[in-house]
Amino acid sequence: MGKQRLGFLSDFVEAITRRKRGGEAETLQALARPASERARVACTVLMGRIGDAARVAVAEQALSAYAELDAEQRLAFFRSMRDDHGVDPQAIREAYAAWDKAPDAAAVADLFRVVEPARQTLLRRLNLAPGATLQLVRMRQDLLAAMRADPGLAPIDQDFAHLLASWFNRGFLTMRRIDWNAPAAILEKLIEYESVHRMEGWGDLKRRLAENDRRLYAFFHPATGDEPLIFVEVALTQGMPDAIGPILTAPEAKLPEPADTAVFYSINNSLAGLKGVSFGNFLIKQVVAVLKAELPELKTFVTLSPVPGFAAWLAAQTDAPATELRTALAGDWPSNPGAVE
Amino acid sequence: MGKQRLGFLSDFVEAITRRKRGGEAETLQALARPASERARVACTVLMGRIGDAARVAVAEQALSAYAELDAEQRLAFFRSMRDDHGVDPQAIREAYAAWDKAPDAAAVADLFRVVEPARQTLLRRLNLAPGATLQLVRMRQDLLAAMRADPGLAPIDQDFAHLLASWFNRGFLTMRRIDWNAPAAILEKLIEYESVHRMEGWGDLKRRLAENDRRLYAFFHPATGDEPLIFVEVALTQGMPDAIGPILTAPEAKLPEPADTAVFYSINNSLAGLKGVSFGNFLIKQVVAVLKAELPELKTFVTLSPVPGFAAWLAAQTDAPATELRTALAGDWPSNPGAVE
Amino acid sequence: MGKQRLGFLSDFVEAITRRKRGGEAETLQALARPASERARVACTVLMGRIGDAARVAVAEQALSAYAELDAEQRLAFFRSMRDDHGVDPQAIREAYAAWDKAPDAAAVADLFRVVEPARQTLLRRLNLAPGATLQLVRMRQDLLAAMRADPGLAPIDQDFAHLLASWFNRGFLTMRRIDWNAPAAILEKLIEYESVHRMEGWGDLKRRLAENDRRLYAFFHPATGDEPLIFVEVALTQGMPDAIGPILTAPEAKLPEPADTAVFYSINNSLAGLKGVSFGNFLIKQVVAVLKAELPELKTFVTLSPVPGFAAWLAAQTDAPATELRTALAGDWPSNPGAVE
Amino acid sequence: MGKQRLGFLSDFVEAITRRKRGGEAETLQALARPASERARVACTVLMGRIGDAARVAVAEQALSAYAELDAEQRLAFFRSMRDDHGVDPQAIREAYAAWDKAPDAAAVADLFRVVEPARQTLLRRLNLAPGATLQLVRMRQDLLAAMRADPGLAPIDQDFAHLLASWFNRGFLTMRRIDWNAPAAILEKLIEYESVHRMEGWGDLKRRLAENDRRLYAFFHPATGDEPLIFVEVALTQGMPDAIGPILTAPEAKLPEPADTAVFYSINNSLAGLKGVSFGNFLIKQVVAVLKAELPELKTFVTLSPVPGFAAWLAAQTDAPATELRTALAGDWPSNPGAVE
Repeated sequence: MGKQRLGFLSDFVEAITRRKRGGEAETLQALARPASERARVACTVLMGRIGDAARVAVAEQALSAYAELDAEQRLAFFRSMRDDHGVDPQAIREAYAAWDKAPDAAAVADLFRVVEPARQTLLRRLNLAPGATLQLVRMRQDLLAAMRADPGLAPIDQDFAHLLASWFNRGFLTMRRIDWNAPAAILEKLIEYESVHRMEGWGDLKRRLAENDRRLYAFFHPATGDEPLIFVEVALTQGMPDAIGPILTAPEAKLPEPADTAVFYSINNSLAGLKGVSFGNFLIKQVVAVLKAELPELKTFVTLSPVPGFAAWLAAQTDAPATELRTALAGDWPSNPGAVE
Repeated sequence: MGKQRLGFLSDFVEAITRRKRGGEAETLQALARPASERARVACTVLMGRIGDAARVAVAEQALSAYAELDAEQRLAFFRSMRDDHGVDPQAIREAYAAWDKAPDAAAVADLFRVVEPARQTLLRRLNLAPGATLQLVRMRQDLLAAMRADPGLAPIDQDFAHLLASWFNRGFLTMRRIDWNAPAAILEKLIEYESVHRMEGWGDLKRRLAENDRRLYAFFHPATGDEPLIFVEVALTQGMPDAIGPILTAPEAKLPEPADTAVFYSINNSLAGLKGVSFGNFLIKQVVAVLKAELPELKTFVTLSPVPGFAAWLAAQTDAPATELRTALAGDWPSNPGAVE
Repeated sequence: MGKQRLGFLSDFVEAITRRKRGGEAETLQALARPASERARVACTVLMGRIGDAARVAVAEQALSAYAELDAEQRLAFFRSMRDDHGVDPQAIREAYAAWDKAPDAAAVADLFRVVEPARQTLLRRLNLAPGATLQLVRMRQDLLAAMRADPGLAPIDQDFAHLLASWFNRGFLTMRRIDWNAPAAILEKLIEYESVHRMEGWGDLKRRLAENDRRLYAFFHPATGDEPLIFVEVALTQGMPDAIGPILTAPEAKLPEPADTAVFYSINNSLAGLKGVSFGNFLIKQVVAVLKAELPELKTFVTLSPVPGFAAWLAAQTDAPATELRTALAGDWPSNPGAVE
Repeated sequence: MGKQRLGFLSDFVEAITRRKRGGEAETLQALARPASERARVACTVLMGRIGDAARVAVAEQALSAYAELDAEQRLAFFRSMRDDHGVDPQAIREAYAAWDKAPDAAAVADLFRVVEPARQTLLRRLNLAPGATLQLVRMRQDLLAAMRADPGLAPIDQDFAHLLASWFNRGFLTMRRIDWNAPAAILEKLIEYESVHRMEGWGDLKRRLAENDRRLYAFFHPATGDEPLIFVEVALTQGMPDAIGPILTAPEAKLPEPADTAVFYSINNSLAGLKGVSFGNFLIKQVVAVLKAELPELKTFVTLSPVPGFAAWLAAQTDAPATELRTALAGDWPSNPGAVE
């Protein structure tokens, strides 16, 4: 970067972290650059030597500039992310040589440090901004799209996948039952995200939340607030149903009859940007545990395998929750429900 | 591991994930092994090929077995963590050779994968258990103690430090004001953790939370619940006090007089296991922002530098929050409070 | 009441407050009486000498029996309420005579005690049951309907009105802003209760809750939970609109432009059983206060008087909130908005 | 009231409901009158023909003026409350005559209306102010003290008692378990209000809230917020203790052993101003129900009757909760615990 660029950088930091006395004009000029430039520069600044607190403001700037980019500009952004925030080859060579000579744990740690792409630090720093986690998940969704145009972006995705798997560790998730008392803003998302058995609207949704014979559970993450990451829909029935139709259309059971069967008839991931992060098994197992404790009369936990819609869809899926559901349901349940723990 | 050991392993998984039909005796035998063995074995199982949901139970078992260890046994546990869950040297050599030949981002990603010690995966899997995050923070506190006996454990600490910095990213923290309406269980911890200006008891604490002229803010993390990670104490005064004494002993200001000065007179980290994870600057900056918005009459934000207790303590500290406070206060504040953002 | 009746009574109390040892048959018999009889008897028991805690169970029984009555049976129930739980004429005569002789405050208090119909005590005791308050409000709604068939029931209504006005005192109400994060169970009621400008469905409702330029506030009572007692809808506009049409159909304002006008375009009472209890003025005044504090740019607070729909409806109404709104709006606002406090 | 007085009144309303243009001086003059005069006048204004919303401001004024009165002035205030806000004798005579002629329910209702002292309306209107309910409870506490000096104030107390019994109806109360996670502001009150077995401080309190073997439950009212109205303390033991000493001093049971006995060892009313309003029985019965559901191993529910402290105290008490506890415990429990419902 030439001298002029550096001058712009410092103006930029100045501009977005505090109001300059007497330099209003330059400040405005810095912030008036095109979004694609601001996004890239903010990332560079973020990796430089600025105070922790200034980083929050720079990260916000980077994300809001990114939000203005179109598909073409995002492609360029991701490429610069790959090329500008990678590794230092010379440092790798040296650390490898040291490890090769004395391959102990300390040498591994040194090697690990230089092999980790700077991008991972960049993503962690972008995450400093309020609300950043959800924006980063959406950024990864954009990346997955961009990879179709440029498969060479795949390495960045490994950084995203690595970080998101760590951040969305099951230990950080909370499970909530969603019923008709949930905020409309959450319910609206369920209607939008349900893709196994689509809902026709609010009436349909209300049916699927009916206290007497339906349940819906979702995982949430504290940093993504009211965004349901994955949700599973359960029907409580007497005996095993042999088709999905009645489950979707039957009126609510009048009395809370002691159902003996829990039918898992739909499971949906909400955020494409969390592809590969595995939630499904955890959710299903916890729902089984909760239902058993709450409704001791439940004896059988099944999915509706022979049914066209779901089973066909399930068989065709390759993403995580579907695979998990197949595994989970194939294994323990129908044959040996009592053993499910 | 010999065949017998493998048999024990499968009994163990069986034992802690489901009740075996007709094998009650073996199950009890597996769970009756000494805690040090159970802890190690559970970690091995956790890294093997078992279902996601079984992992939750195994992680719980590992952590509860770990909790029973004494200092000597913990030393052994950490050594096995270092030696059994490291890297595969052959895989490193191959990935390095591939990268050396074609040093692109994809080759870096492959190298990264094999250089990351298996311990990091182990820690992420231990974190699956309910309440695990706080237990892992305490495990690291034990590790820091163990490192005094065996400095060769340092590489494990780098894994802990790396993961905890990622998990306790500022984007995941929430700031809360603590006042007299906070749960006693939290307040009790403040009395325990305050080490800059000790509190004599509940009366002393209540004084420091007085609505009219005191504030206390803390960062919390969703996964560690009501554990205040770091907290800062502020006095609202008229004019700049020249000693800490009055701040600690003065009775509550009668009327909420429009204070013009906010004195940051104490900042404390609570969890030794989060050493090196930097919170202080973020907390101070956010408190400044909140106070400015709530009390526009505040013009000056200072610490009590020339005062024996705090300044001496601050100067002597080498850990993160103290350094941050020194930096934060040295920089913007006393000389130019209006510019703090 | 003959001896047989008394026997039934004690069985009844026995039946609904504890399980009788060895008298299962009689207990079931008592509970098997027709609902109309159970409702009346439970009221009698409630006024007798039983323990406080037993009263909770008897009150529940009375209300659940009442809930089974049809219109005809309710008429009979109200008549017995009027005739069986009135006053003791002889006691009135004596207290009056005493007061007439020495008309001091103590004599008034004695007279008051005997003039208050026993019904008021009955209603207070019915209120002991969980969730009773809302059921009593609905009972009064039934009463208002029954009075059309039998105007002689009016005196009971005075007891209801007296008690409900006391219980739903403004000091016990809390105002909440309702937005898209409110529970669907509440929002659904708004769609149902809105009668000034009907909503077509959830899309329509969401428009009326839009953050940028709409507000909806409601009063709630702790004992009736999520039941909005009254709600008012406000549009934030630039300049005074001259028709209701655009307010109902305009898309959400893109940016939160600094609106200068708050248009109160609809106000609705939800519970017919609270007829005569006045909420409207309190709600409107508090909304004005909240909006002024939150949005200082608001200068004008108006209703849409010359508009067909609302003004015509308002003029035609005789119930409390409409009258209040007329008064409130007629007085302070359009001519002299700055003076509204 | 002469003309001058009326002028003052209207200034007063003006002063406290809105800022007068160009009459600042008169306004300040009105508000500068002595508190005793302001309190009385505000009550008069409150009973006059002003808008609903203005009443909120006038009620606030009345209560804040009242709060400034000393004991002597309060005596005068209560006398004027008795004498200025009573009944209209002529109206009583007429309504009585009408009823005497045709003693139907409608005539009773008319008579009731004129016999109810205006004070009750006054108290209901004072309750319009935010936070008024607790202030009225404290006002009644003052009244009980004043009645010792002037027994002629007793009739007012009947109005207070009548209204408070209606407002603090059990249907409006919520029971909460208080543990160590409760706000310090609530816990502090328990230490203050406990008078059966005094607590020495926070350590003592913490012991009484210990999860393993102690319970504390309280009733709260929505309008008095975090004020515990009454609370009961329970020890969970194995076998029936024969003295209070061990209960107060024993360390926490190590493991949550399945206790078989619940010992109710203390019950306290918090607010003297709620004298005569009966809570104790309701609280005890509900605690018994909650404990039975939560801890099915509990078989015996007792108090410590033969113990000096509590039993002696209980026997000596004449107020409501003590009497209730005596009754409740005498009746169902020790002899036949299984029957308690």
